[in-house]
Amino acid sequence: MIIVGEKLNGSIKSVAQAIQSRNAEFVRDLATRQLEKRADYIDICSGVPEQDAEVLGWMIDLIQTDHPGVRFSIDSSNPDTILSCMQKCRNPGMINSVSLETGKIEKILPVAAEMKEWNIIALLMDNNGIPVTVEKRMENFENLIVKTKEFGIAENRLFIDPLVFSVATTPESFLNFINTSKQIREAHPDIHIISGLSNISFGLPYRKAINHAFLIGAMLNGMDSAIMDPLNGDMLGGIYATEALTNIDEYCIEYLDAYRDGMFGI
Amino acid sequence: MIIVGEKLNGSIKSVAQAIQSRNAEFVRDLATRQLEKRADYIDICSGVPEQDAEVLGWMIDLIQTDHPGVRFSIDSSNPDTILSCMQKCRNPGMINSVSLETGKIEKILPVAAEMKEWNIIALLMDNNGIPVTVEKRMENFENLIVKTKEFGIAENRLFIDPLVFSVATTPESFLNFINTSKQIREAHPDIHIISGLSNISFGLPYRKAINHAFLIGAMLNGMDSAIMDPLNGDMLGGIYATEALTNIDEYCIEYLDAYRDGMFGI
Repeated sequence: MIIVGEKLNGSIKSVAQAIQSRNAEFVRDLATRQLEKRADYIDICSGVPEQDAEVLGWMIDLIQTDHPGVRFSIDSSNPDTILSCMQKCRNPGMINSVSLETGKIEKILPVAAEMKEWNIIALLMDNNGIPVTVEKRMENFENLIVKTKEFGIAENRLFIDPLVFSVATTPESFLNFINTSKQIREAHPDIHIISGLSNISFGLPYRKAINHAFLIGAMLNGMDSAIMDPLNGDMLGGIYATEALTNIDEYCIEYLDAYRDGMFGI
Repeated sequence: MIIVGEKLNGSIKSVAQAIQSRNAEFVRDLATRQLEKRADYIDICSGVPEQDAEVLGWMIDLIQTDHPGVRFSIDSSNPDTILSCMQKCRNPGMINSVSLETGKIEKILPVAAEMKEWNIIALLMDNNGIPVTVEKRMENFENLIVKTKEFGIAENRLFIDPLVFSVATTPESFLNFINTSKQIREAHPDIHIISGLSNISFGLPYRKAINHAFLIGAMLNGMDSAIMDPLNGDMLGGIYATEALTNIDEYCIEYLDAYRDGMFGI
């Protein structure tokens, strides 16, 4: 599993306060702790559109001073912010995100075509929002692939998010997610499937039971990446356990190491 | 999911002590608590072969006085014990278990042929123990089916346990389990798949992470019954969550009810 650490997001109150007061220690600490817990990418999202590029640039400078090898997931709705942040990063990272929804993809793809080591999160939504059916998701997927091919983006750079509604309101939400994942992986084995882990349980009590089952079920059906909180030991333990069960982690070597290192179960 | 509550087992120290001192309150309480937490069957296992029938008979009398509708899973290696317990039970239950391993099946099946409401747990082991491969498990399954058909046992009375080794020593253990389950369910949709939930993690630390992932992964691949501890809220929550995700529990009605009733998440 490829983990995108989601904690540095301005929609979280404590992060919003740290951004407002430019609390460098807070940001550095949250990045470091996520990197210690197996985050492959540190997602950064400002939550303040009017200062987007400045805030993200400040975070990038802070974090890559501490961690020269860090890779960022640049999380912004503004393509200009994404492009300026890409220039600031020492290491190639993740563009979060593109979709058919807006004109953003037309600005991002030409740059991604040049910066060949950057990966791209692509959401299967369109101007009508999140599709209800698997068929419509696959139609959006095919339309996306036409565009990425046009710009010569290799398939292994694509992280497709099939998107989920809450099962509280859309009973077939999980089944549609895994069926979309399976169809994509069967036809395009190099393409990654990514998802957040909490939308599925929106509106329900004790969301962690649903989120945990979603994580394991999605991993067993082709999802190989998640935007998640790596500081959540239950979820991280679920990843190590599922990798052991599926023989990705043969003889539980990683599971045992991670347990000894306190990554989960403490 | 059909839940067989596993707590009244003489191999558990506190239960062994209660059996030795014929502590009726202990037994009644453990049965009641499991029934309150969605146990469909109460498994009873004496752990004392020389007093097997007497101990199980004592438990049956105690529990069915409190709960006239209770269904037992009679867990014994002695076919005569099973047969005598079946006579004592007011309601049809579960025979736990038969396999190709011993001569037990030849004693049990003629009786099961007559007592048509009793279900049967059948393990896919043979005289060489638990098979390593899916192919050998399927061979044992086909041999079992020949015998049960001979006695006119309906397929919906069969609860097949494909059996698992620990992933610590057998990396493909889970994958073999789900592949066996899928093959059986595809060819025989009326047959149930059952398993214990803890053998998979034998020898590993923080077993609940592995057990939990096993439960969810097995449920997503055809397992519809488990021999488990229904008092474990995390596991029971995992069942409700997976039933919600797979639209067995449409709009999370059961999930919400169970949460309100304190079945998990407290």
